[in-house]
Amino acid sequence: MSNISVTVPTFAEVRAARLRLNSRIHFTPVFTSQAVDERVGHSVFFKCENLQKTGSFKIRGAINAVSQLTALELSRGVVTHSSGNHAAALAYAARLFGTTAHIVMPTNSSAIKIAAVENYGGRIVKCEPNLAARLSVAAAVQSETGGTMIPPFDHAQIIAGQGTCAMEFLEQVPDLDVMIAPIGGGGLMSGTCLAAKSLSPTIRVIGAEPAGADDAYQSKLQNRLIPQSNPQTIADGLRTNLGDLTWPFIRDLVDEIICVTEDEIIAARRFFCERTKLIIEPSSAVALAAQFKRNRDSAARPQRIGIIISGGNVEI
Amino acid sequence: MSNISVTVPTFAEVRAARLRLNSRIHFTPVFTSQAVDERVGHSVFFKCENLQKTGSFKIRGAINAVSQLTALELSRGVVTHSSGNHAAALAYAARLFGTTAHIVMPTNSSAIKIAAVENYGGRIVKCEPNLAARLSVAAAVQSETGGTMIPPFDHAQIIAGQGTCAMEFLEQVPDLDVMIAPIGGGGLMSGTCLAAKSLSPTIRVIGAEPAGADDAYQSKLQNRLIPQSNPQTIADGLRTNLGDLTWPFIRDLVDEIICVTEDEIIAARRFFCERTKLIIEPSSAVALAAQFKRNRDSAARPQRIGIIISGGNVEI
Repeated sequence: MSNISVTVPTFAEVRAARLRLNSRIHFTPVFTSQAVDERVGHSVFFKCENLQKTGSFKIRGAINAVSQLTALELSRGVVTHSSGNHAAALAYAARLFGTTAHIVMPTNSSAIKIAAVENYGGRIVKCEPNLAARLSVAAAVQSETGGTMIPPFDHAQIIAGQGTCAMEFLEQVPDLDVMIAPIGGGGLMSGTCLAAKSLSPTIRVIGAEPAGADDAYQSKLQNRLIPQSNPQTIADGLRTNLGDLTWPFIRDLVDEIICVTEDEIIAARRFFCERTKLIIEPSSAVALAAQFKRNRDSAARPQRIGIIISGGNVEI
Repeated sequence: MSNISVTVPTFAEVRAARLRLNSRIHFTPVFTSQAVDERVGHSVFFKCENLQKTGSFKIRGAINAVSQLTALELSRGVVTHSSGNHAAALAYAARLFGTTAHIVMPTNSSAIKIAAVENYGGRIVKCEPNLAARLSVAAAVQSETGGTMIPPFDHAQIIAGQGTCAMEFLEQVPDLDVMIAPIGGGGLMSGTCLAAKSLSPTIRVIGAEPAGADDAYQSKLQNRLIPQSNPQTIADGLRTNLGDLTWPFIRDLVDEIICVTEDEIIAARRFFCERTKLIIEPSSAVALAAQFKRNRDSAARPQRIGIIISGGNVEI
């Protein structure tokens, strides 16, 4: 994967990403819910990336990466392997910059995810549903096309792009005491730490994970990167491993990780959807479930808590 | 039902209602969707009353009515019979003004609707699931408590309150060519006509109905009020008859009524929810389904179309 930059991004790169994204994506709204506030005893703010272009925050990193390609690189296309939101986001970003996205997707990908990629003009290359097949098929597509590999999270430009979400959030709600986001591969969380800790050094950044895919929690506990084995969770966006680039952010900048059960995820999602009328992915409910759990032994004074709702792509 | 005013409201009463509602309800946002615009070839704007307090537009009429009660009337409470959004809205409005809502609900009401009324402090009086029982139990509760009956739609203050939705909508999107809303009892549609035709005399107002509950369509066709018999539709908010007060608005001010099948309702709801990430009731999808149908033989020049999304209370 020779095209992957291993530069660790800085906050300057988040700022630069913000300018590249400007007017190409939605400045997503912040929702509040009286019912949530009453339940947790704090003021909770939701940054609604489910209302973002392509239905998730992933478009931020994808556009930030694709917009920096040279004309020659654009003429050769971009490549990734993903069955999720990154696939749709990269297809959308590629179309925006007049290039082709070659998306390696496992044969068991859901119909709605395939339809989203096709809808944005992506070229789908099917592969067997295992990691070895995904990697080898992606490598073959890359060598065949000369395209640039844009991985879903372990990439400086992707991390910098995802950081623009927290940056916007702190403009919309400047005095947050806490920011909570889910952790899958760690791209969103790395960008969130980078932006939030730079703009608001005293903010507490909390990661949320399913108990059945708690590699970040275990890694922090043992202070070394532990791969996720056999993830068991409905939060399909959070089954991935941390990466070599994202792990240092999680290790050094995340203040706390809270793990939640499947029942807690389902209950939090139902509560949120019924009260706000917004559709969110199970992965996004993980962050609210973490706050619900946290609340039981929370601070004495009322806090202002920001929760990043990462996406809303579910089959209706 | 001696407490029901039979005054037909004017636009002045919509304006007055607006002042009464001010700061007590949400100024709901207008959403747009690129996918919807591409599909219909016009610019479509959605006024999101699913994001309103209590999850539907019904709070507008309920607060407008309850806020005009005297201290003596407030001391005796309010009464209605409803298994739907009006029940929750009236309970909320009653609590806001320090009075009690006695809500007659059929024993087969859904758990979530009962929970909503209880959550807002309403007093539920159960009755057999038929109209005769609802009317007689409501009359008994009224004579027992001396409370004021606040019916769901056939009431001048309710109609005036519902009209504030279209009034806001035309402030948010001033140059709409068309406004579409669903028709159940006709309270929302009557208020919509009143406000929209007053503020924008050339606007085309279109009503949307399920083919399985098309009493307004049939009534207009025959130019006389025809009661709904045996309604068959998943759009549970649209099964009711028009009333004596709402029928003249529908007859004289609605330009066209479009009926849609159950399949069209379901497909429109799925399309809307998947693309906007907003949860809407089947009744709200009826208005979008009408536009989808309308589109096939629509105007040559691109139009600006406003659709009122009436509510979002569904079991998750």
